[in-house]
This record gives sequence, structure tokens and C-alpha cells, in this order.
Amino acid sequence: MEIYFDNSATTQCTPQVCEAVADAMRNNYGNPSSAHRRGLEAEQLLRKSLQKLAATLRCSEKEIILTSGGTESDNMALIGGALANRRSGNHLITSAVEHPAISNTMQFLEKNGFRVTRLGVDRNGRIRLDELKDALCDDTILVSLMYVNNENGVIEPVEEAASIVKSYRESILFHTDAVQAYGKLRILPQKTGIDLISASGHKIHGPKGTGFLYMKEHTKLFPLMYGGGQMGGMRSGTVNVPGAAGLAAAAEESCRNLAEKTEKILQVRNCLEERIRRISDTVILSPEEENIRAPHILNAAFPGIRSEVLLHALEAEEIYVSAGSACSTHKQLPVSPVLTRMGIEREIAQSALRFSFSSLNTVEEAMHCADELDRLVPKLRRYTRR
Amino acid sequence: MEIYFDNSATTQCTPQVCEAVADAMRNNYGNPSSAHRRGLEAEQLLRKSLQKLAATLRCSEKEIILTSGGTESDNMALIGGALANRRSGNHLITSAVEHPAISNTMQFLEKNGFRVTRLGVDRNGRIRLDELKDALCDDTILVSLMYVNNENGVIEPVEEAASIVKSYRESILFHTDAVQAYGKLRILPQKTGIDLISASGHKIHGPKGTGFLYMKEHTKLFPLMYGGGQMGGMRSGTVNVPGAAGLAAAAEESCRNLAEKTEKILQVRNCLEERIRRISDTVILSPEEENIRAPHILNAAFPGIRSEVLLHALEAEEIYVSAGSACSTHKQLPVSPVLTRMGIEREIAQSALRFSFSSLNTVEEAMHCADELDRLVPKLRRYTRR
Repeated sequence: MEIYFDNSATTQCTPQVCEAVADAMRNNYGNPSSAHRRGLEAEQLLRKSLQKLAATLRCSEKEIILTSGGTESDNMALIGGALANRRSGNHLITSAVEHPAISNTMQFLEKNGFRVTRLGVDRNGRIRLDELKDALCDDTILVSLMYVNNENGVIEPVEEAASIVKSYRESILFHTDAVQAYGKLRILPQKTGIDLISASGHKIHGPKGTGFLYMKEHTKLFPLMYGGGQMGGMRSGTVNVPGAAGLAAAAEESCRNLAEKTEKILQVRNCLEERIRRISDTVILSPEEENIRAPHILNAAFPGIRSEVLLHALEAEEIYVSAGSACSTHKQLPVSPVLTRMGIEREIAQSALRFSFSSLNTVEEAMHCADELDRLVPKLRRYTRR
Repeated sequence: MEIYFDNSATTQCTPQVCEAVADAMRNNYGNPSSAHRRGLEAEQLLRKSLQKLAATLRCSEKEIILTSGGTESDNMALIGGALANRRSGNHLITSAVEHPAISNTMQFLEKNGFRVTRLGVDRNGRIRLDELKDALCDDTILVSLMYVNNENGVIEPVEEAASIVKSYRESILFHTDAVQAYGKLRILPQKTGIDLISASGHKIHGPKGTGFLYMKEHTKLFPLMYGGGQMGGMRSGTVNVPGAAGLAAAAEESCRNLAEKTEKILQVRNCLEERIRRISDTVILSPEEENIRAPHILNAAFPGIRSEVLLHALEAEEIYVSAGSACSTHKQLPVSPVLTRMGIEREIAQSALRFSFSSLNTVEEAMHCADELDRLVPKLRRYTRR
């Protein structure tokens, strides 16, 4: 039985998504910028896709900027937001546990004259709102805080943070990297102070190479790339219409019956988690409190066995999981810097595995995975201790 | 009979390309950065795709940076090249007839402290090499010259220009936007002084949202986006593996039997061109000399009829062509600025149509299109003159 528990790294496209992409590639190949019927047909499909995406956030389709994925959306929000607001200040705020698409982009901005404050986190990986309050100053122009941490699944206090930022000064841009949250949690930016949201297609059973940036009306950003002026001038380049159709199909599916799907994912996760807790000396690194935790990520440490060792032992049984984040090409990080910043001890962090689920997973898979862990963990520990 | 003569705007994916994308989406969905088998399988497909792309340019696979398309490749070359070499100077050289992905990016750089020289062109749209020589100076850090003009199909003297630039100073980056040339002309960067080449998937029957930047070994660029460090750190973001597989399939097909395909395209084009010449008062805006002309683009003016009018009259007969470039969202430009800069009179430029071909087109289609032009042009002219 092949078990894919690495859905936070990437997901398999659903048949509906594959069909939406393939159909557009075959039958709707025009350039939406072309003036003839083939162009208009493509433009109509594009518009329909944007409307579907907008419906998931209850926003206007004009507020959806299609990109090539989460990384581009993050870069566009940060670099575009920083450059467009440079005259108002040079101070940016983020957390210490962001995905490299945020942390490395912040580093780039830092080298280019911006000042960056990185908020520390508690053992769950959450920022403290008081620290955010203290960090805000006259020079602050942008705050970026991830919605759900990609390593342990903690939900950051994004709405509260946005409200604090906007109370301090309305003109400060508030961005959230929601790559691990979109399609898993209900996000309604209209009710909050969030100006910018990054989302990715391939994390929600959509096509790779797709994503979007939600950009609240009247938000001022510089584009990341220049050219034909597509996407209202915000994102030039011939629009990937088949990708947009696939992304929209995936987004629609993800957000439909969200409560039911969450329930299904929780059954799988709870089953596995309970079984892991029964194995001696294991540590669950995802938060205890359900209300600050995304349903689809379970981070667990098996002290005494290095992450890669258990990962490959599970792989031999066709069970696929992650050691830390897979969103980086550094396949063998010595120890996750994000877990370290949460205050997790080195020995625990370097034995951590991430199990990440989708609604395609089953309780049977969780049971089978737990059986293998029951078998493998004591065996590998014996081997290590020898 | 539906006739698609707008292949420079975008092309239909071949069945092989659709199959390559669909197969990867369904069966090879891993994240190439994942450490388990699903990740390795994806990485292998990615590697194979890069090797196929590299083979078309006879370069190393490490020199291929996958992007989301031609626009991103152009922006990466220009912005990345300018920022990385800022210390050596602030002068950039380009032509006056580039695609907006170049001209608008140059404008952005100009607003950010760089000085841009735009070389004028002759009536064919070609730069004069003497002017390039005169423009080079101590401050020059980058020269960007399109390979094939997207409106009239002229081939710029790219290799000669690269040689002049490199003789002047080896460290000046030489970039070519080859979006309309790659897969149509044989391009072998190793033999020339070209450091950077932009190419796009959807112009060669590949997937939309795909493209690459050829980046000669040891070339110094800043990335356009930061994150997980994919593509050797040059282009972060989970790689679109199905897109890469489709792009590689398209590139392989395009470059295989190139001479035969060119012959086939030339038959279609020559047939249509001869017939258009026979219609009174028409002007061919593509160059006369075959050696400075790409085979797949025919720009012809029908003075007395505005481009859009004839475009829509042909559309009613299911014949799809372009008025100027379709690579922009401005669907109804009053008159092409590029043709104007070539010295084409306003009345001629505003009656110009671009017919662009692929090896899927047939002589029968050219004959049928010519029949319709024979019928429509006199009729529309009578209407206009009334």
C-alpha cells in the first residue's frame, strides 16, 4: 500500500484538475490578449477562473493576481510592497519562522536598504502580539506573517496581528503567506485588515506552476515583472489559462464542503497521532490546542533516530513523509532552523518528521503507517544505540 | 475551415505535449525537492527535461533556468543582470523595437538609476552595428537585442552584435530575447558571445506558463525571486515539473527536422505572400531578403482598411490573425509604435496585419485565406471610401 503523507510538500492533482488543464490545453489554446474569437474564448475561461478564485475569498475578481506560485506571490508582495512604499519608510516586520520564500526575500530587501524586524516565537511557533506592538514604528511600511507554519502546522494570530497593525496605521501593508492555509482554513480578507494573501495551486491538488496573490483594491505595489501589462498591469506575461482553469478547479473543490473534509483529515491525523503518542519517548511538535493548529500537519519527533533515517525506512515501505520542509533544495538540513527558533532541543528537532494529510488520505493508511512506526522505531533505536 | 494564422501570439499544444503534461500531472506528482522516492522520480523527470532543453542549444543542463515564460526570462536577464553588475556601471543598450517585456523592463530600470540607449532601426527593423559600436562606453554593463522581431519577423544581427560587444569588453552581458526565434532558427550560443537567451514554451506548441533562460556558465545575475533556492538558487519556487516535461517535449519536436519544417512553413507563407502581392496597393512589411527574415511571420498592410476591420472580417470566416503584437493587453493600439519606429508611414502601419505560421498550417489554408482576402479587401475598401 503506497501512502502519501507529504501533502504539505506537494499534492497529487485530482482527476477534475487534470481534466480542466488538459481540456483547456487541447480546446482553448488562444491568447487571452488576442482580439479574435480564439482570444475571446481564452479570455472567457480566464475570467471564469478568476471568478471562481475570488468566490473562495469572497472578494472581487480584480483582486486576484495570477502568478506562477506561492514563491512568486510572496516575492511580489514583499519586494513590490517595499519598493512602492519606500518613500513612507524602510522598516519591515516578519516572524522568525517564515518559509524561505519570505525569509530569503526579506534578507534581499535588508541588503537593499530596508530594516527588518523578525519577531520571535513561543514553543508552539506563534509570535507574541505584544512584541508586534512594540516593533511597529513610524518607519514601518509592511508586515508579513505566515498563516500556517509549514513545519508544525501552528496557526499564527494573523487576524489579530492585522488588526493591531491597522490600528497603529492604516497605510501599513499587511501580508500573509497563506500557502499552507488556503483551501484548508476559511480565509475571508474583507472582514480583516489583510491587504495581501499568497496562495499556491500545487498544495491544494492544483497544478504546479500556479498560484495567486490576493491584492485588496487600492493596494499599492510595484510589479515584480514588466511587459505586456496583463493582470491589470500587475503581472505581465501571457496568462497560463490552462493553469488558471486547473487552479480554479482545485480551489473550488478545496473550499467546497470544507468542514466535512477537515473532519475527514482530522480522523486520519488523530488516529496517527494517538498511535505515535503510544510509542515510548515520542514528542508531538505540533501544538496541543486544536484552535491554533491546522488540521493537516502533524510534526512528531522520535528521539534517538535521525529524521532522514526514519524517513528512508518508511520510504522502503512506500510511506512518504518529510523531514522538515520540502520546499527547499537543501535535502539534508542538519536541523530545522525553524524548529530551533521555536526552542525545540536539538536532539528532538533532528529526529522530527512531518506527516501531512489531504482529504484523499484514509484512516486505514494512518493505521498502516502507525503499524510500521511501531515496528521500525524500536528497531532503529536499538541499531542507533549499539 | 478554421485557419489559425496567429502562431506568434500563441500556439496550440501538440498531442505529444498535452500527453507529456497530463502524464506527469497524473503519475509523477512529487516535489523534486522531497527526499523520498516520489521526489526522486520527479527530480529525474525534471533532469531529463533539462537535458532535452540543453540539447537543443548544445549547452549544459546547468545553463538552463526554468521560468514561467518569456516575460519572466526577460525580466530576470535585465533586472538580474543590471543589479548584479551595478558596481561596474549603469549603462544599458537595447533596440527601439523590442517586445514590451524588454522595453517596459528597461523603463523600470531607467527609473531606478540606470541609463538606457535605444538603438534606432532601418526600414526593415534592424539595428545598425555602427550605432551599437558608438553607443558602447565604459559604463555599459548589459546589451539586450531581440533575435526575431515579433511584428515583422526581421532577424536582428544578434551574433554580429554579440561579437562587437564582447570585443569591446568581455564582461558586458549580452542578452537576446529569442521568444520568436527559439525553435524556428538554429541557435548555438557556444559559438557566439551570447550570455543569456530568453525562450517561451507557448510559442512553440508547448504549455503556457513555461519558458527558460539560458544562462552561460559563470554569468553573474541576481535572481528575480528568492525562496527555497531551486534551479541552482537562480529561480526559487517548487519546479513546475509537468510544465517542464511539456516544454521539453515541445522543444525537442521543434528542433527536430528543423530544415524540413522550415521548408513546409515557407511554402505556406510564400503562397499567401504571393497572393497578397497580387492584391492592388498592398505592402509587405516583412523584409525582402530571405536571409534576414524568420520563416514564420508575414506582416502585410492593406492601405485603406484599418487593421481591426480586416482582422474581424477574417475572424468572421474563422481565419485568425493579429493586428500588431498580441502580447499586450492593449487590444486596440491606434498604431504599432514598433512599425512607426521602423519608419513605416502611419496610413500603412494602421492597416497592417500579422500572419504567423507553424508547421501545422497547410498550403490549402494559405490558398483559402488568400481567396478570402481577394474577396474582402476590395469590398472593405469600397465601404471605407464611400
